[in-house]
Amino acid sequence: MKMVPKRPLKQDVTLKTLEQMAGRVKNWGRWGPEDQLGTLNFVTPDDIKKAAALVKRGKAFSLGLDFNSNGPQRTGWGGRFNPIHTMLATGTDAVAGRFDETNKLRFSDDAINMPVQAATHWDSLGHIFLDDKMYNGHHARRVDGGGVHVLGIEHTRARMVGRGVLLDVARHKGVDWFEDGYGISNDELDATAKAQGVEIRKGDFVIVRTGQMERCLAEKKWGDYAGGPAPGVRFENCYWCQDKQIAAICTDTWGVEVRPNETGDANQPWHWIVIPAMGLCMGEIFYLKELAQDCHDDGVYEFFFCGPPLIITGGTGSPINPQAIK
Amino acid sequence: MKMVPKRPLKQDVTLKTLEQMAGRVKNWGRWGPEDQLGTLNFVTPDDIKKAAALVKRGKAFSLGLDFNSNGPQRTGWGGRFNPIHTMLATGTDAVAGRFDETNKLRFSDDAINMPVQAATHWDSLGHIFLDDKMYNGHHARRVDGGGVHVLGIEHTRARMVGRGVLLDVARHKGVDWFEDGYGISNDELDATAKAQGVEIRKGDFVIVRTGQMERCLAEKKWGDYAGGPAPGVRFENCYWCQDKQIAAICTDTWGVEVRPNETGDANQPWHWIVIPAMGLCMGEIFYLKELAQDCHDDGVYEFFFCGPPLIITGGTGSPINPQAIK
Amino acid sequence: MKMVPKRPLKQDVTLKTLEQMAGRVKNWGRWGPEDQLGTLNFVTPDDIKKAAALVKRGKAFSLGLDFNSNGPQRTGWGGRFNPIHTMLATGTDAVAGRFDETNKLRFSDDAINMPVQAATHWDSLGHIFLDDKMYNGHHARRVDGGGVHVLGIEHTRARMVGRGVLLDVARHKGVDWFEDGYGISNDELDATAKAQGVEIRKGDFVIVRTGQMERCLAEKKWGDYAGGPAPGVRFENCYWCQDKQIAAICTDTWGVEVRPNETGDANQPWHWIVIPAMGLCMGEIFYLKELAQDCHDDGVYEFFFCGPPLIITGGTGSPINPQAIK
Amino acid sequence: MKMVPKRPLKQDVTLKTLEQMAGRVKNWGRWGPEDQLGTLNFVTPDDIKKAAALVKRGKAFSLGLDFNSNGPQRTGWGGRFNPIHTMLATGTDAVAGRFDETNKLRFSDDAINMPVQAATHWDSLGHIFLDDKMYNGHHARRVDGGGVHVLGIEHTRARMVGRGVLLDVARHKGVDWFEDGYGISNDELDATAKAQGVEIRKGDFVIVRTGQMERCLAEKKWGDYAGGPAPGVRFENCYWCQDKQIAAICTDTWGVEVRPNETGDANQPWHWIVIPAMGLCMGEIFYLKELAQDCHDDGVYEFFFCGPPLIITGGTGSPINPQAIK
Repeated sequence: MKMVPKRPLKQDVTLKTLEQMAGRVKNWGRWGPEDQLGTLNFVTPDDIKKAAALVKRGKAFSLGLDFNSNGPQRTGWGGRFNPIHTMLATGTDAVAGRFDETNKLRFSDDAINMPVQAATHWDSLGHIFLDDKMYNGHHARRVDGGGVHVLGIEHTRARMVGRGVLLDVARHKGVDWFEDGYGISNDELDATAKAQGVEIRKGDFVIVRTGQMERCLAEKKWGDYAGGPAPGVRFENCYWCQDKQIAAICTDTWGVEVRPNETGDANQPWHWIVIPAMGLCMGEIFYLKELAQDCHDDGVYEFFFCGPPLIITGGTGSPINPQAIK
Repeated sequence: MKMVPKRPLKQDVTLKTLEQMAGRVKNWGRWGPEDQLGTLNFVTPDDIKKAAALVKRGKAFSLGLDFNSNGPQRTGWGGRFNPIHTMLATGTDAVAGRFDETNKLRFSDDAINMPVQAATHWDSLGHIFLDDKMYNGHHARRVDGGGVHVLGIEHTRARMVGRGVLLDVARHKGVDWFEDGYGISNDELDATAKAQGVEIRKGDFVIVRTGQMERCLAEKKWGDYAGGPAPGVRFENCYWCQDKQIAAICTDTWGVEVRPNETGDANQPWHWIVIPAMGLCMGEIFYLKELAQDCHDDGVYEFFFCGPPLIITGGTGSPINPQAIK
Repeated sequence: MKMVPKRPLKQDVTLKTLEQMAGRVKNWGRWGPEDQLGTLNFVTPDDIKKAAALVKRGKAFSLGLDFNSNGPQRTGWGGRFNPIHTMLATGTDAVAGRFDETNKLRFSDDAINMPVQAATHWDSLGHIFLDDKMYNGHHARRVDGGGVHVLGIEHTRARMVGRGVLLDVARHKGVDWFEDGYGISNDELDATAKAQGVEIRKGDFVIVRTGQMERCLAEKKWGDYAGGPAPGVRFENCYWCQDKQIAAICTDTWGVEVRPNETGDANQPWHWIVIPAMGLCMGEIFYLKELAQDCHDDGVYEFFFCGPPLIITGGTGSPINPQAIK
Repeated sequence: MKMVPKRPLKQDVTLKTLEQMAGRVKNWGRWGPEDQLGTLNFVTPDDIKKAAALVKRGKAFSLGLDFNSNGPQRTGWGGRFNPIHTMLATGTDAVAGRFDETNKLRFSDDAINMPVQAATHWDSLGHIFLDDKMYNGHHARRVDGGGVHVLGIEHTRARMVGRGVLLDVARHKGVDWFEDGYGISNDELDATAKAQGVEIRKGDFVIVRTGQMERCLAEKKWGDYAGGPAPGVRFENCYWCQDKQIAAICTDTWGVEVRPNETGDANQPWHWIVIPAMGLCMGEIFYLKELAQDCHDDGVYEFFFCGPPLIITGGTGSPINPQAIK
């Protein structure tokens, strides 16, 4: 097992830097005043058509985590909890003859209860605020006890389809996983793509592998995975996403960006900018082990991507089971 | 608005008929004693590859219902309820400055609670029992208060991908929707396919449109949609699914089969057979309006289908947002 | 079955009236700037001691509704739903031998999920706001996505004990139940007490019976019970509660006050005042049938009252099963 | 801080012993074939009347734990979880003006979700099975995915009232808390009562203090409190409860009885007997710190006890906030 030593990152991001960055990468109005999709607008029908042509072996990979009580919510961040699965009817009921007189069909049934961001999930554009505003200038007060009344995840119901690209940065750097606190630079992302022989294009669903989740799974211990220190993209990644015009960025970590953050003035400065200013679609807690191995084996790092959200009206996001199909 | 008059169906299915049918279409052992996938085994990598080639316009359709408190669970069948969405953090909290001192990031967060079969969903093979057994001979006692310990929905995590075919039976018969109690025969399914110029093949995800959901949406009233009378396939459909070797059957109704059923001796006789005896994958409460209109418009009733389940460990099914991509 | 004809109430309460009333009955600071109990402060140890002396027959009455899916939440007011009861382990599991190898104890287990105000409940003083303030001047922003950070129901953990008095206004007026929209005046409360031979004292838990719940139970139909028209106290009741210095007011209706309200400018004007201005403790959806019959039979309308809340940290209230002991 | 050294208990209870004990203390039929109350039948109206006379100072003590995410469910025993509190409406919504146009009342609202036995609670008689039977011979199959169809907690709605007695065994033995694994003998219970100058009578609600919870609270660490090692009554306590004819036994531990148990053949052998054979009412996870101090201070260990359950139809128990009133 190899790990790149953690590089202490400078804490040089300030509230001023954040304000400047927000101005630099702001996409408000870019797709009209009514837009609720942000960077998902970059995906064209032609992109989807070409992405489908990447299906050459007919092999699907699930990028979702198992949703159960052994999930990553260990630290109780923000009141989140692991999925709770309870039964409404069971096979033991059937065997005991409980349905035979009344229902005359032997069945089982159940319910699931979870924070929408408990495990593998999309963030909606209503999840993070810049001052009192959301993406496209919508007012934050429109997210209340009744839900996300604008920019909810339901707007993406048929938009999470396109070309997927895996950037296996950890493998490129020769490690099984990065240490917590390791900040991935834009240059490293570009170098990884180049080494993998894959190009990042407008409208891509870019998936960055740090290996952190695989470390947790190997150690059978989530620890502070949810909300604690993690490897991830540096703050400068705001530029990279904006310049590449990608549709979405996804990772195998809880929050995409490196933690501890490059600032003590803010928490998750990259989130602070890319969701409300840029309107960037973001996927977190992706399970990448098998896909990454396969890409390494056949040398093909692009694929058809399909990660439909549950259409949770007013959701700040959605639990998902994204598919990469090669 | 046109409706085919309801044909009173003979109540000629008996427990004896059920037993015979189970024997006729039983697939236990067909894919080995350890198999947990049933008819999803019909889908080959080549099928997936060819299905991807059906993506010609790059247009995705969502076949999922909106998950919220206005869902179809009105009659409380089996203790089911509509999705419950509650908040953990809001934009109004942000505006009120609630995060500024502690979290230093302004965000919203929420949770969703629902029966897995509350709205658009897959059934798992652990959902229905034949006497004391499940598909492939697994004992029903393995579904208990702790969940579905065999045949749970998690096994399908990367298998809900392939060729989709819409059989718009309602439109073929010249109606907006069938009346409740209308039983669709195998001949009608074949005639619809022929009229649409589409062939049903081994490994297909077949989607049958009755129009019932669209009637409910038009009338803004779910009524007894969940568990009450409905149009649907007749009991003889067991043969059709088995002979065609389809991967899955899906519809816009609560339970695929016609209700009232063709028997007073059992409840949902088709379920009784196809899940535990045949191992048939089944999708219910699909939203088909836009897909059906598009297929009618361009005359193309086949497409790439991708409907990944949430990986709910031990689930009797999963809420989904299936995608049809043309 | 007799009903007093509904008297059309004048719609003469205005926002100006509300403001004046708030000034008249405001108790902010009365029990110190840190107080979180409001009118529960009226109850003294001596009151509790004397109340205990009212236990003469050793007979306890439950004033709680059964918590299940047949509860009063039919109209979905504010996203509320009936209690959801799901199982974690069952007797059928036991019979099927599911625990014998692992747990070696045969047991059942379950969970309950409900809005705290779904059925019989207390409101906490953090439930209603007057402009941007709560009782005692606490700012409304202290109730956020994380809960009620001041004035939560947990503060009342050992305070819901004292002298209970039933005012069976419906029976006093000779009816089984009042019609919806019937407004109970202060004079009627006093006349009922007088006719019953009971005196209202400082620190009492006063329980007002309208009969509305019994009508719903008799008709087996909740209809608009939760949030719709109802009999109840008139707006002038603010004076009555303040003058009598009662500890709490409770009823068999959803919201104590008459609906439709005596104003079109506000919703639930009595709530608007008594919770945030006065700091009045309030119990709703009490089941009174048996207690009322017993009081009528023995002519004794006072009793020991004990209605402990669940100690839900930060709750806007709590589900309860209050006890009246005679 | 003093602790009595843990005495290693003999593992001398066998399945044979269990069978014999069940025969010795079985109360089936004692209160008729339809009885669903078990030992609560011991409480008479006269007992309640006399208990009320114990209220001499008008001081109420709450014996309930705070219900929140910091509860004792740390080890995930049986899929249990700590209470989950989510919001439906907030004060920040109010301040942001979210209600002003539509609802015209500024309010907050919320929901609570918890296993009924997550924190302070009663067990119902449907919670534990003896072979395939429950108390009074009811068949275990009557507890299924739909709930506890016989012996549910709802039957006790007005029965949790009577004379309470605290047996502060830990203090009597001169320790702040017993070590885990310390088994309390019947002689120690009797000696404690004698030293405290209190007599155990038929129909009493007996509350045994081990100090374990106070240790957890002092150490701010629940550890294995839920389901792990604990001080508690020895298996011989079955005799004691039966001979004394008490109404209920309650403690400050998760499971009343000592753990590890005095047997490797069974789990919780005392539960195995007292619930299904004897029909004993049982309260767990009681918070006793303040009550115990007060009893020590005034030397009075008897009081009026009132611990009404939520009327959860078909519940295996109920969360509670019991009151001891002196």
